[in-house]
This record gives sequence, C-alpha cells and structure tokens, in this order.
Amino acid sequence: MIEKRQAISIYDAIARVMKYKVEGDIEWVDIDDADNRYLAEPIRADHDIPPFDRSPLDGYAIKAEDTDGAGRENPVKLEVIETIGAGEVASKIPERGQAVRVMTGTLLPEGTDTIVMFELAREQEHDGKSYIQITRSFSPGDYVSFRGEETEKGQALVERGKCIDAGVKALLATFGYKRVPVRKRPIVGIYATGTELLDVDEPLESGKIRNSNSYMVTTQVRQAGGIPKYYGKLMDDFDTCFNAVSKSLEEVDVLITTGGVSVGDFDYLPRIYEKLGADVLFNKIAMRPGSVTTAAAYNGKLLFGLSGNPSACFVGFELYARPWVQTYIGSSKPYLQRVKATMTKEFLKPNPFTRFIRSKTRFEGDCLTVEPAGLDKSQVVTSLAHTNALAVLPGGSRGYETGTKVDALLLGGEGSTEPLDDRNVKKER
Amino acid sequence: MIEKRQAISIYDAIARVMKYKVEGDIEWVDIDDADNRYLAEPIRADHDIPPFDRSPLDGYAIKAEDTDGAGRENPVKLEVIETIGAGEVASKIPERGQAVRVMTGTLLPEGTDTIVMFELAREQEHDGKSYIQITRSFSPGDYVSFRGEETEKGQALVERGKCIDAGVKALLATFGYKRVPVRKRPIVGIYATGTELLDVDEPLESGKIRNSNSYMVTTQVRQAGGIPKYYGKLMDDFDTCFNAVSKSLEEVDVLITTGGVSVGDFDYLPRIYEKLGADVLFNKIAMRPGSVTTAAAYNGKLLFGLSGNPSACFVGFELYARPWVQTYIGSSKPYLQRVKATMTKEFLKPNPFTRFIRSKTRFEGDCLTVEPAGLDKSQVVTSLAHTNALAVLPGGSRGYETGTKVDALLLGGEGSTEPLDDRNVKKER
Repeated sequence: MIEKRQAISIYDAIARVMKYKVEGDIEWVDIDDADNRYLAEPIRADHDIPPFDRSPLDGYAIKAEDTDGAGRENPVKLEVIETIGAGEVASKIPERGQAVRVMTGTLLPEGTDTIVMFELAREQEHDGKSYIQITRSFSPGDYVSFRGEETEKGQALVERGKCIDAGVKALLATFGYKRVPVRKRPIVGIYATGTELLDVDEPLESGKIRNSNSYMVTTQVRQAGGIPKYYGKLMDDFDTCFNAVSKSLEEVDVLITTGGVSVGDFDYLPRIYEKLGADVLFNKIAMRPGSVTTAAAYNGKLLFGLSGNPSACFVGFELYARPWVQTYIGSSKPYLQRVKATMTKEFLKPNPFTRFIRSKTRFEGDCLTVEPAGLDKSQVVTSLAHTNALAVLPGGSRGYETGTKVDALLLGGEGSTEPLDDRNVKKER
Repeated sequence: MIEKRQAISIYDAIARVMKYKVEGDIEWVDIDDADNRYLAEPIRADHDIPPFDRSPLDGYAIKAEDTDGAGRENPVKLEVIETIGAGEVASKIPERGQAVRVMTGTLLPEGTDTIVMFELAREQEHDGKSYIQITRSFSPGDYVSFRGEETEKGQALVERGKCIDAGVKALLATFGYKRVPVRKRPIVGIYATGTELLDVDEPLESGKIRNSNSYMVTTQVRQAGGIPKYYGKLMDDFDTCFNAVSKSLEEVDVLITTGGVSVGDFDYLPRIYEKLGADVLFNKIAMRPGSVTTAAAYNGKLLFGLSGNPSACFVGFELYARPWVQTYIGSSKPYLQRVKATMTKEFLKPNPFTRFIRSKTRFEGDCLTVEPAGLDKSQVVTSLAHTNALAVLPGGSRGYETGTKVDALLLGGEGSTEPLDDRNVKKER
C-alpha cells in the first residue's frame, strides 16, 4: 500500500529545479524604489570621477612657480583676488603672484595648478586687499584631485546581478541613474494544506494547530525577492485542493503548497500533480528534514510541494525554491552562501542521510562556530526563531563530535554562485 | 581664522549621542506587516507544543498491551476500526484488539497509547474488515509525540529586541499573534547641502557633481529601520539653510544633513547650530574618514551633520546615527557587529587616527579575511558599492601588514550590544 519513491541527491534535485530557471523581464524603477533589487545591467561611469580637476580641501589655488625658492626665511606673498565655493566657477583668471581662495570640491580655477591648504598659508590684509604668505615651495599638481583619478568614463564599476545596497545606490546616483534597470519579481502563490490548521486569529481546539508555515514562507519569499500571494489554507479534500491549485496557477509564476506531500491517506498533492498532468521532478530527496519535498513543472511554471512540518518546510524553501526566485530577480548568487564552521556541540545521532541542522553561528575571534539552535526534529518550530544558518551534516555517519568542521549555509549571507554538492559526501573530521 | 576644534574618541562620541537615546512607542502591527521589525515584548507560549499528544507520522494508534509477547513467529492481529486524519477526532473508542489508522499530526485517539508506523504493520482485509498484523512488541508511549515535549505553556521563547525574520514569524503565528507588538520607527529627515550638487536627473555642468549622499543615506536609514524623509538639496546660503533646518525639525525625530560641517567659508552648519541654540555634542572625532562628523541636540531631537564626502558620510551614519535609530525601533543589538578578520592586503600608510577602511570580507575555510574594497580616500564613492564591512585600523601606527588581525564591523550582520571602544587603542599584530 505504501508508494515506493526513489530518493535523489540534493544536488540533483536542485539541478532539476534550475532546469526551469528563468530571468524576469527587465523593468526600470525609480532609484528611490531600487533598494534590495538586483542590477540587471552593469553600472558604467558616464563621466570621469572626479569630473574635473578640483580642490580636495579648503585652501588656496595658486601657480606653483610663484613659490619657487620660497622658504621660512624667504616667504612669498600672493594676492587673494577672489573666494569661490564648491559649485561656483572663478570669475577672474589669476596672474602671476595671485591666488584664489577655494573650498573643498571647487573646480581648480583656470590659471592655477596647485592647492595650498589653509594651515600652510598665513593670511594678511592691508590696503584693503587680502594676501597670503607661503613659506615653502610647491610643485604643479600638489594637492590637486585630478579629473578621472578615481574612475575613468566608460569603466564598468559594478557587475550585473549585484544587490542594490546603500553603496551601490550612491554610485547609481553619481552616474545619473534616475531610473535603474532591474528584473521583475516573480509572484509566488502560497497555500497551506491540512484540515488540522487554524488561522492565526482562531482559538485553539482539540486536534488542531495554528498554521505557521504560510506566514513563515511568506517572509522567506520576500527575503528571496519574490512577491508572495497567500491564498489561504485548504482542507484535506481532493476536489477543493485540485480546483484551488489549478486556478491559482494561472495567476502566479510559482505555486508553493505546504503539507500533503507525504504518503498519508489525505496527502493529495501527488494525485493533484497527476491529474494536472504536471511533470514531477522529484518527490523524495536523500536529506533530513524535508525528504518528501516535491517539485513539479506544469506549463513552464513550477509547483513546490513543501513538507507540512515547519522545519522541513523551511529547509525545503531555502534549498530548492529560493535559488529559483533569486535567479528570476537577477541575482548572480542565488544559492545560500556556504562557509565552514566548527561545531561547538556534538551531534551523536546516527545520520544515514545528509542532515540540515537549524543552527546559530557565532564568531570566536576570526573563526566561525556553529551549534544547533534548539531541538532538532522536523516538526519543531521554536528553534527556527534562533536560526541564522543551516549546518550540513553529511549522511553516512554515526554522528559528529564537538570540534568537527562542517559546511554551514548562511541564511542572511550574500549568497553563492554554486549549489551545495552532496553527490560524493564524505564525513569530515 | 581657522576654528580650533577638540577631537574626541569614537567611543565618547557614540556615548554622547546615546545619552539622547529613546525607544519609540509600542504599536501593534498585523503579523503580515511585521517583517524586519523588532519584538517589543518577548514571545510567550500561550499553549503547550505540541498542544496535545499526537502521532508524529502516518501509522496506527494502538494499545501497547495488545502487542505483549508479539514476535515474528507469534504475530498479533488488530482490527482497524477507523481512519482519521490530522485535525479530525476519532469517533469511536477502540477496545482491546482494535486499532485506529492515523495520519501525521493526528490527536492520539482516546484509549490508545502507542503509534505503529505503516512500515511495521502488515495490512490485511477479510470479511469486509481491515486488520493489521504486528510482529514485535511495543511499550506505552512508543512513537507518540507528547503534549508540551517541545515547549511548555508560559515559556518565553524569544526575547524582546529580536528582529522578526521568517523563523520568528513562524513562532508568532503558532502562538496566535495576529497583531505583533513592535516599536514605532523614527522619522529621519535628510538634507544634502552644497551649491555644487546636481540632482540625479540633471545634466552635468562645470564645477558641479551629482548628489549621491542623500540617496545613499536614505537607504542607510531604511536598513537601520528608520523612515527616511528626503527634503532635497540646499545651496550654500545661510538663511536658506537655517530656515530649512529649523522648519524641518518640527516634522522629524532626527535630522541629518550632509556637507557643510567643515571649516570652509560656506560650511554653515556650525553657525546654524549656534543660531538654533542647539547643544553641540561634538564636532571633531579622532577618526578617518569623517573627522568632522558633528552631532547636536535641540529640544530632545538630534541633528547629525555628516561630512559631504561620500565615504566619510557613510561611515558617520553607520557609527553614530545607526545605533540611535536601531535603539528607537527596539533592537537589542544597535551597534554594528564587531568580529575579527585577517587582512589579506597590507595598508602601509601612516595612521595617526583610527581609520575605517571600506572593506570586503570573505571566508577562507571557517576564518574571515578582509581587504579594502577599493581606493581609500574620503571623497571616493566607487569603493562603497563593494563594501560589506568597515575594517578598523587603530590609530598610532605606521601601517598594517598582510596577515594582521583587525576588528571588522559587519554592515549586514546581526549587530552588537556594545559599541566599538577606541579609548585605549593598541596596535595589534
């Protein structure tokens, strides 16, 4: 009576999903709305930086030759003919023996080639005129910030696929990107299935639990860059579920269901995929938790059947749905960032399949440590609130001792270009 | 003519700002709008988890005593009187010799005490009735998931001050938080000052540059959890600036200006603070870049005068304004997360003051490395696009060699409860 399923590797499961990857269309959004989107094109310098020779400080623009031979015993005196601030342009061209008082960022006035900071110029006034006295010599170009010394026009400064943070935004503004090319965000539909589910505002009743998965997945979708569309919860009734799923598929790019993918009598998702005529990419993965995570393709759209167990659901989304969403929005690093970390607690359970432990990483000096965030069972929800990484314990071991270095997938990290590869897992000590 | 300012330590500057810290009022937001807010109260379990004894898998609920003495040679046969799914309640109470078929998550039926998974029960049908055959004995409680075994009612599960991510949200939903207590976000006004500034959509002209700081700071404010309110740019004209600043102060919790805080002729912010009657907390800090970063208090509101140099502006916000904003919204870790990292490039410039290098961290195995993200000059903007950390090079050295371990402040990290302390900087090798 029990359906036999063929477990595949995590790597193969990810690959089967990513065969269906697609990049969203490019759209141009206002720079004010570009936070956390991903650049669809590289940022190019549309002008040199600095765009002109300028003063990097408050001081005097002079001709270096006027200071030839100047010294403590032999000061030179220059007449200050004008004061200009950043954004202003000098109205006079200084002759030999003349200087212009300039502020930080001011265009180097025509006829000058050197900047002398305030501290090196002694100011004097007489006969209604201003003068400075200088007691050292300068070479042409001293203290000038030259056009293009930071960046030359045409240079590609940031690659496509980079997340737009405060620093990237400064660059976009500098180069006049009032509108920014990014990729559209996919619409990700979400259903929670299970007769046992109560809404968050319903009182508890015997045999029932509150639906937490759809709230959690909604946030996971947003963090990944998708637009979540929560359709509600579904009772375990085949026709209700089938109609809901097939109707919603018309409105979304991806449809996620939680629950109903195992081999229980009311686990209807397998039969729904069959009736739809969807191509089931996998329905069993050699991993814990989340071995029943299922994906199917239908009319170019993906359906993810995540486990109803909160931790399994969480892991299933991060490993399989997140990279698809991240690719759609144009991220160049769609997979969770993978780093090494040293276990500070043992995990001595036999571990036939690769296991993802909801974990908390910490730095000890410059090194990363990792330990379980709480009880490690697929139905456990409390540990998720303290999880910032998934520790990866390769299968085929009787356990892992304190001090073992393992892979950790960082949830808030910058991502990775490559997925986890478990095809040839070896226990690492 | 040059105003003499007294440089204070970074630690003291932060302390002077944080003397004015205030927590926003508590507001209750819908769970769907709670992403990235901070819990204003701990999450408490309003019920046990699991809320009732239940089956953690698909199987049969039985009485353990019915399997006493069962073995391969001596199987016991039980009649299956009912099938129930999660969320349903059994309608019959089994007698001795009877079992109930149950699905994952089902309330343990009255009269049963043990769960036998599908794989250990051989199904049979005869005389129109269903039976299972079991070939081993069980003890009461085997495979039952007991009420409260994960969490007991009343337990505080997540402390106040924690950021609401997907995992926290799962817990909020589980415990019925349809509305979530968080703290209000502060309104942070932003002005860019400088006659040289062009808007992002204006064409370049001689002596002028595009305003990038306010776009950058806007995103920094959002990332910190504040609500940015950009008022536009201001020409270097005292009356215009004074009127704009004093009017805006009525509408914001904090006002940030960029530019105009140095000692140039058109740096009006010091005179504006004076005319307002604001209490200047500091106007010079022993750090690079951003030594002219200024803060002032007026009527319980803070004014931050950040440098007009992009990198200095960036660092000034992260070190001084961010912790104030983060405290307002209730974060328990308002300071940038501080970790150690090994320098993979030398920095051999003499370093009289503590220097913050816009840097990129990477993991090598389980250890963190750091290197400059690009040109290290305060007016440089391009390096900011590749920065994910600020490497801290303590002052009083002639430079740092490759391999030196330094502090790094992580921009995207989870934060820290303690600020950087530079009061007793020692060069670390």
